[in-house]
Amino acid sequence: LSEWRKIAMLRDVFSTTSKTVPISIGDDAAVLDDRLVNVVTVDAQVEHVHFERDWLSLRDLGYRAIMTAASDLAAMRATPSAAVVALTLPEGFSDTDLEQLSFGQRDAAKILRCAIVGGNLSRGRDLSLTTTALGHTHAPLLRSGAQVGDTVYLAGEVGLAAAGLRQLQQGRRTGVCVDAWRRPCARMDVVPSLGAATAGIDVSDGLAQDLAHLALASHLRIELDGVPQHAEVLAFERLAGLPAYSLALYGGEDYALLVTSPLPLIGFVPIGRCVQGAGVSFQGTNVDAAKGFDHFAAF
Amino acid sequence: LSEWRKIAMLRDVFSTTSKTVPISIGDDAAVLDDRLVNVVTVDAQVEHVHFERDWLSLRDLGYRAIMTAASDLAAMRATPSAAVVALTLPEGFSDTDLEQLSFGQRDAAKILRCAIVGGNLSRGRDLSLTTTALGHTHAPLLRSGAQVGDTVYLAGEVGLAAAGLRQLQQGRRTGVCVDAWRRPCARMDVVPSLGAATAGIDVSDGLAQDLAHLALASHLRIELDGVPQHAEVLAFERLAGLPAYSLALYGGEDYALLVTSPLPLIGFVPIGRCVQGAGVSFQGTNVDAAKGFDHFAAF
Repeated sequence: LSEWRKIAMLRDVFSTTSKTVPISIGDDAAVLDDRLVNVVTVDAQVEHVHFERDWLSLRDLGYRAIMTAASDLAAMRATPSAAVVALTLPEGFSDTDLEQLSFGQRDAAKILRCAIVGGNLSRGRDLSLTTTALGHTHAPLLRSGAQVGDTVYLAGEVGLAAAGLRQLQQGRRTGVCVDAWRRPCARMDVVPSLGAATAGIDVSDGLAQDLAHLALASHLRIELDGVPQHAEVLAFERLAGLPAYSLALYGGEDYALLVTSPLPLIGFVPIGRCVQGAGVSFQGTNVDAAKGFDHFAAF
Repeated sequence: LSEWRKIAMLRDVFSTTSKTVPISIGDDAAVLDDRLVNVVTVDAQVEHVHFERDWLSLRDLGYRAIMTAASDLAAMRATPSAAVVALTLPEGFSDTDLEQLSFGQRDAAKILRCAIVGGNLSRGRDLSLTTTALGHTHAPLLRSGAQVGDTVYLAGEVGLAAAGLRQLQQGRRTGVCVDAWRRPCARMDVVPSLGAATAGIDVSDGLAQDLAHLALASHLRIELDGVPQHAEVLAFERLAGLPAYSLALYGGEDYALLVTSPLPLIGFVPIGRCVQGAGVSFQGTNVDAAKGFDHFAAF
């Protein structure tokens, strides 16, 4: 059976049983150590919606799927323990293609020290990857914890992936922006710095929309002063006739980390502050959250 | 934003924060009680592969998606704690449609005492539901634990859903078989009876294939004597010119529970035994596992 062969191949690639994952791929469900999981999130990457296959290699795509799912864990001050991956494979998707996809998933999972413990294969018209990331935190960081007086901090680039996406749509296949879109990075490296943080969210839909979520949940207003911009983003905005900062504010998929804190945080730069009121402003002007990146979202 | 409205609606339908689920829909990830989860499985229901929309109501579909995912937990001797649901919604899928789907998910989750704690919404060409079920077990039941001399036990109908699927494909829209396909039942009711069980699997791909998985994992041979058959299945097989028992052996999606045990188990009927060797036989004839239901599978 082709199905059995595919699953045996994935088991070889992910080979994930360990002391903390006694039962992995090959049974009806995976079994994990009792105290490994108290946070869960799911993310989907759907062909023709989130990506076109000629925009990135299958290995990039697998990598991207794991990282975008894990990013939500970082925003909760959690670290990843395990992931399950549900794949919809279209007609003509070969076992070699599946292997490339799984190599990318494995690459990302290794960096995150996250085991891929199971999944599901289905046929379907369009290629899609639905990744459930399981993690653990001792103190969840919520969207609702920001306090008036807190500073807003950012770790990571914003606007770079959105520039890359536009370049890909225009036919460009190389460059810093394209690479940023293809291989986002869940910011687990700064999770240990989040001790004093009061609220957090990852930037998947653009600063405007994600800050609006945070402001709404915390019942306050966020005033942005300015945002560090990569030279390539500024150059692309000029070339494309876009207003400066528009990609940072309204472009998604950077998976930077946005947090609020009364104290400075290592690895983060200050970009604004929490004040009384509602909504989000950028350099004194109200920002329209509805303009953010929208292909539906995690909930 | 239509996305925000959809997510607010789902939060209202699932409304799942509780003592054991402090953070549910509305943040970057859900937060669960520390000892709630040590088993995880994922299942997908994809339009044109697993179902056509005129075969069942959207409420049935939501119900079905939760039950098929949870069935894998029952087979591991686990009980469900929580689920996350990733939905791909095609053009024209209205908020009312989404509400109906979520009502079905809620119906099933209530029966299973399982919280729906988060998810993902994406656009896509075809409707699909990818459900990750999280559960807990004190003693996982594996496919590999069967012993020579054990009896093979079954809880639930086999062949009924396969007859229903064929009737739906032929245009029939009512009846016992059709209902069995539309509203499968994860057999959590018999999980407490599994104390003496040595191995388990749920019947998603037909007896032939699922018993072959069990025999292979346990390094033994399974001899089936006979299988209880619903009168409707026998009648349908006669009418369709199919060999008796072919739907039970080769038709999938009943989500009955198949276990091995040296002792009788309440709620189960004996259907065969474990002997030395390999493969599966039915009434003395070798069974071809490769003929089982195949639209890929969970791993």
